[in-house]
Amino acid sequence: MRISALLAPDIRRILEEDPEQVRELLEEIHPEDLADIVSELEPHQAALLLGRMPAEGAAPIFERLEEHEQEELAEQMKPESVALIASEMAPDDRADLFSILPPGMAEDVLSNLQRVDPQAAEEMREIAQYAESAAGHLMTTWYVTGRPRDTIHVAFEAVRSHAELTDTPIYNIYALSDDGRLLGIVSLRELIIAAKTGEEQPLDPLLHRNFISVPPDMDQEEVARRMAKYDINAMPVVAGDGELLGVITIDDIVDVLTAAQTEDVQKIGGMEPLDVPYFKTSFAAFIRKRGVWLLALFISEFFTQTALRHYDNVLSAIHGAAYYVPLLVSAGGNSGSQSSTLIIRGLATGEVKLRDWWRIAWRELGMGIVLGLGLATIGFFRVLMYPEQHAAFALTVAIALVGIVVAGCTVGAMLPILLRRLGVDPATSSTPFIASLIDVTGILIFVNVAQIMMADVITRFEVVH
Amino acid sequence: MRISALLAPDIRRILEEDPEQVRELLEEIHPEDLADIVSELEPHQAALLLGRMPAEGAAPIFERLEEHEQEELAEQMKPESVALIASEMAPDDRADLFSILPPGMAEDVLSNLQRVDPQAAEEMREIAQYAESAAGHLMTTWYVTGRPRDTIHVAFEAVRSHAELTDTPIYNIYALSDDGRLLGIVSLRELIIAAKTGEEQPLDPLLHRNFISVPPDMDQEEVARRMAKYDINAMPVVAGDGELLGVITIDDIVDVLTAAQTEDVQKIGGMEPLDVPYFKTSFAAFIRKRGVWLLALFISEFFTQTALRHYDNVLSAIHGAAYYVPLLVSAGGNSGSQSSTLIIRGLATGEVKLRDWWRIAWRELGMGIVLGLGLATIGFFRVLMYPEQHAAFALTVAIALVGIVVAGCTVGAMLPILLRRLGVDPATSSTPFIASLIDVTGILIFVNVAQIMMADVITRFEVVH
Repeated sequence: MRISALLAPDIRRILEEDPEQVRELLEEIHPEDLADIVSELEPHQAALLLGRMPAEGAAPIFERLEEHEQEELAEQMKPESVALIASEMAPDDRADLFSILPPGMAEDVLSNLQRVDPQAAEEMREIAQYAESAAGHLMTTWYVTGRPRDTIHVAFEAVRSHAELTDTPIYNIYALSDDGRLLGIVSLRELIIAAKTGEEQPLDPLLHRNFISVPPDMDQEEVARRMAKYDINAMPVVAGDGELLGVITIDDIVDVLTAAQTEDVQKIGGMEPLDVPYFKTSFAAFIRKRGVWLLALFISEFFTQTALRHYDNVLSAIHGAAYYVPLLVSAGGNSGSQSSTLIIRGLATGEVKLRDWWRIAWRELGMGIVLGLGLATIGFFRVLMYPEQHAAFALTVAIALVGIVVAGCTVGAMLPILLRRLGVDPATSSTPFIASLIDVTGILIFVNVAQIMMADVITRFEVVH
Repeated sequence: MRISALLAPDIRRILEEDPEQVRELLEEIHPEDLADIVSELEPHQAALLLGRMPAEGAAPIFERLEEHEQEELAEQMKPESVALIASEMAPDDRADLFSILPPGMAEDVLSNLQRVDPQAAEEMREIAQYAESAAGHLMTTWYVTGRPRDTIHVAFEAVRSHAELTDTPIYNIYALSDDGRLLGIVSLRELIIAAKTGEEQPLDPLLHRNFISVPPDMDQEEVARRMAKYDINAMPVVAGDGELLGVITIDDIVDVLTAAQTEDVQKIGGMEPLDVPYFKTSFAAFIRKRGVWLLALFISEFFTQTALRHYDNVLSAIHGAAYYVPLLVSAGGNSGSQSSTLIIRGLATGEVKLRDWWRIAWRELGMGIVLGLGLATIGFFRVLMYPEQHAAFALTVAIALVGIVVAGCTVGAMLPILLRRLGVDPATSSTPFIASLIDVTGILIFVNVAQIMMADVITRFEVVH
């Protein structure tokens, strides 16, 4: 049982009876739990609750809400109140809020913010110009800066006054040129050590000038990979001319990774990714997001029926042959699904590169042969368990299995690589789509092997009928 | 092209010609790039290279290697050298190293470490007692502590001397009782602010005593979720009696999340998770990890053939009916795969709870009906396109589709919940397994609908034959 579920009804009651009393009650609760409570309330009640709180108390709650909740809530509030709360939010969260509001409302909030906090409004405009999936949209413009000629004492005072403004950890001091270019970085840790021996020495010799940075248009997932790889807690975002635009901190990366992973899993599962959690997605949105793919896969499976019908002469001649089709094609689908998820995930984490494609192809070919031979052996004896079946048919099933598993492994591995090469997200080659493709391939392999292996049985059947 | 691929051959050559020269060359390169270079070298060359470096230079490289690389490399080195490098590693990385070494070797390294750095050896023993997936195994024992009665000045000196020892960011100061219990936390940011007004004041009033902590046996993924939810950068690990055991930092959480996600995707893809990247996994390991599942799925698909054979009288009576089986069962498999990935991911992120099962069941039932009716309409007209088919058969296909999609949605959604309830990782209910289950169900639905809708056709066929 979550605390929010227990508290929400009480708070709903107090809100109706004595709204003033709510404020004290809320001071003791962690903002994350408060955000849970706000999620449980109706939007108009939540708006009332946040409206009663000072903006610096409401902002941390608002920041923690899901995007669709922020939107619903903002629509219930006056643009002035939203602007006041926005002025207390971290710059990156503020830019996110701006990007989800309906355009007209966003303009209203922005013009109100312009009055309350002109600098915040300016920052909001700057961050909002980058794509939602770009590094620029994830960066905060709150960080500590200095000049190389500043003394350690001056830098330390900058850290102190920054600490008073925000509640986020301070990792580094960024030394800028007069025109705002990033010249070097010194960590707070190093500054603390250096302060011991001499507060009046300049920052300059402490600076790391060989730092790693990212451009503002880099994809957030790529930024996440680099920060994980190089163990960087705060990544500077730098423009082409060297200007420092902002900083991305490691805690935002955790959210990026989780969201990216959810999207990938949903694509692999064969649907449009949801933007909101399962229970917040409307029934209609589900039908749309699932229906489109389900329909596409259904229509692509029509080809299995067309192919089977086309080979009616073969399948009618070998009584019971058609009953083996689901067994055979599923072996292809399963091996293809294994290969494609391996490659999709490898591409996502960077362990697999596009240029490795031929190594992958060889490997998957080898694996297909070995795995296929394994299944073929079992399939062969399975068919022989039925006394009415020819040994030739058992051999047909076995040979077809090797071909089908090889096709599954190679197609399953190569399709994600091809899609990435074409600039499409490889997760979109979702496992079910690969399965449909391999189902048809599997039928063609099976029937063609049968035509060769059992030519006499087929001819005899055709003569009789 | 990675820098490591360019440099590795040069370094290999220099190692052979003039090993002394290597050391200078390496000083300019980031440890992560050096780790890449070491990965490209043969283990004996890598051991030679690391052996030439001072332990404090070798440790950051060693820490960044993959586990299987650490193991290969350690086997090429003397236990004394490994112990020296281990003494310079962060406590959590050191414990990881200890857990991957073969038992005999681990003992040798530990007894050497005991001589070089007794405290490190003690810490290593402590961390290694926790399960590899537990919070205790992820925590570092390097953190800044104080007493509540310490002055701000004393606390600041503790931060400074800690900063000189490690290169990790410092988030907090942990105030302990005389017997090591965690009493409260103050962030470095707050300490910096407080230092301005009075360095001689006690720490006590600054302490947050209402902190969030985790026990050492909590699963690392659960720790990751909490840190993400509450935006915590450093999570204290506290024993049952309140003793502070260690701290887990946000950068380790990024690795936990990435590894957990890879595991989930591979399970959804229908295989045992790999422990190492695609190209580092041996061919034999692949065959084992993929073969087991492929075989299990293959054998479970035998039931499709058994079921089809059992209903031979129905399928023979309606000419071409068997050719619709792959089309029909794939609709069930695809809808099941959508539902199962939605629920598996929802359970993983915590958006979906076990107690919501009946809400999910109702929702998926509704979605199955709507999506099934959509496919049924298209399926109905598709069958009618063939002049030789009865309208009764078109209706059979349509009704079966509704039933199959409903079965797909509900089974696909409920199976992960059931597995979690039984304490099994829901990702193990991998999409292909659900597909196999639904394939058989789909055949049963199809044949039974046909028996009802086309009873006269079937009877007439049986009389003739």
